[in-house]
Amino acid sequence: MAWDPDQYRRFEAERNRPLRDLLNGLDDLDPRNVVDAGCGPGNSTEALIRRFPTAHIRAFDSDAAMVDAARKRLPGIAIDRQDVTRFEPEEPIDLFLSNAVFHWVPDHLPVLKRLAGFLVAGGALALQMPDNLDEPSHRLMADVAAEGPWAAAFAEGMPRREPLPSPATYMDRLGAAGLDVTVWRTAYFHRLADAAGIVEFVSGAGLRPWIARIEETLGPEAASAYRAAYQVAVARAYPPLADGSVAFSMPRLFLVARKRA
Amino acid sequence: MAWDPDQYRRFEAERNRPLRDLLNGLDDLDPRNVVDAGCGPGNSTEALIRRFPTAHIRAFDSDAAMVDAARKRLPGIAIDRQDVTRFEPEEPIDLFLSNAVFHWVPDHLPVLKRLAGFLVAGGALALQMPDNLDEPSHRLMADVAAEGPWAAAFAEGMPRREPLPSPATYMDRLGAAGLDVTVWRTAYFHRLADAAGIVEFVSGAGLRPWIARIEETLGPEAASAYRAAYQVAVARAYPPLADGSVAFSMPRLFLVARKRA
Repeated sequence: MAWDPDQYRRFEAERNRPLRDLLNGLDDLDPRNVVDAGCGPGNSTEALIRRFPTAHIRAFDSDAAMVDAARKRLPGIAIDRQDVTRFEPEEPIDLFLSNAVFHWVPDHLPVLKRLAGFLVAGGALALQMPDNLDEPSHRLMADVAAEGPWAAAFAEGMPRREPLPSPATYMDRLGAAGLDVTVWRTAYFHRLADAAGIVEFVSGAGLRPWIARIEETLGPEAASAYRAAYQVAVARAYPPLADGSVAFSMPRLFLVARKRA
Repeated sequence: MAWDPDQYRRFEAERNRPLRDLLNGLDDLDPRNVVDAGCGPGNSTEALIRRFPTAHIRAFDSDAAMVDAARKRLPGIAIDRQDVTRFEPEEPIDLFLSNAVFHWVPDHLPVLKRLAGFLVAGGALALQMPDNLDEPSHRLMADVAAEGPWAAAFAEGMPRREPLPSPATYMDRLGAAGLDVTVWRTAYFHRLADAAGIVEFVSGAGLRPWIARIEETLGPEAASAYRAAYQVAVARAYPPLADGSVAFSMPRLFLVARKRA
């Protein structure tokens, strides 16, 4: 399931807002060695460069198309193709940032604890993850997948993400690993033109595994039919405002975990 | 029901975090005339002075003790005693900020529309309000009030706040009044020492009307007994983390509404 950097970038302003809020949650952190894990097309890396102009910043992503896009955007930055679960830094890290990545990593608390081992004292893990499995936009992906000619593509199971651990679980488990954890959860209400706008938005991320599975199993026409049925269901779940636009709620969980001295 | 500035300030760091996030939501706004409506003991006004050092800033609050506390803290700033529903500015306003105030103002959409009439083109209303009526900490205020010797104090009704309008309602109604509205909702997970810490936190704000009613009707001993019973209920609703502390969720709704040119 390859990523499409152009589709992902279509809502870059909306996707960068949580990144800005994550960076604002770092307070007085003044990092030297910064790692951007799962950098996508480079938008998060670019924000890190602006925020920490004198830091040594490197980035990686597990997807080849995203690595290419990020390298084109930021020719001066070292950007590798790498999996976050296998990452080994050459030097201790002051800031390990990961923007909209860890919701794709199942059972990620042990991964975070391993990464915390690479931090200097006072260094931070900073994460932001969509926490939207209970939103209509997300639930309808499965509901629509279950009913229709495309249902055969999911005979062996649906590409559901694991629910995120609770805020208290992150506090407990990362606290026991020597980190002071700050957690907050923000729902952004994006104003989009209509239901098709919502489908466009999730097409860049959450809807991808569903579409990809149908395409691989049954072909592109079945995938288009699923997408159309999904859009009808989304239109019912998000009634238009007075001007015809829709308010699309996108909840995200934020973690800033600082290693105790 | 008078406010206690010292009690309110006890969790100033936790209460200032949403204020910081509200200010961060103003992007490139560069206001000249700024009004801080419901300034409390002056913490929000002080943050405005730091953020906009060359702006003309004035503040007001409806509570005499808060006005006194704010004047002591900020002797150079004009701080009046005034009700937000009756406020009339002398000059057009670039930024009207109100931090943790409007949840106390019932049916406040018409109030916001009236205030929007005082904005310059491009000017903003910026609000932050606790949106916590569904949290255990808040529901238990009413549950405990209903069962106990203090229940007589609520024979004529409970001091419940009105639920906030939905984000879509703010977008619709303020959009029709010529404003572009950005809405987000953040739940902060404050780590507090124990259940008593949660009771201390809400004692500075949400618990006040309940305690005040019992004190006025039945006296201070009944109020203390209610507070103790409330703390027992809170301890059950917020199980301790591994180290004995508790994660206290405090959801807040944010609005930044900018007047179209």
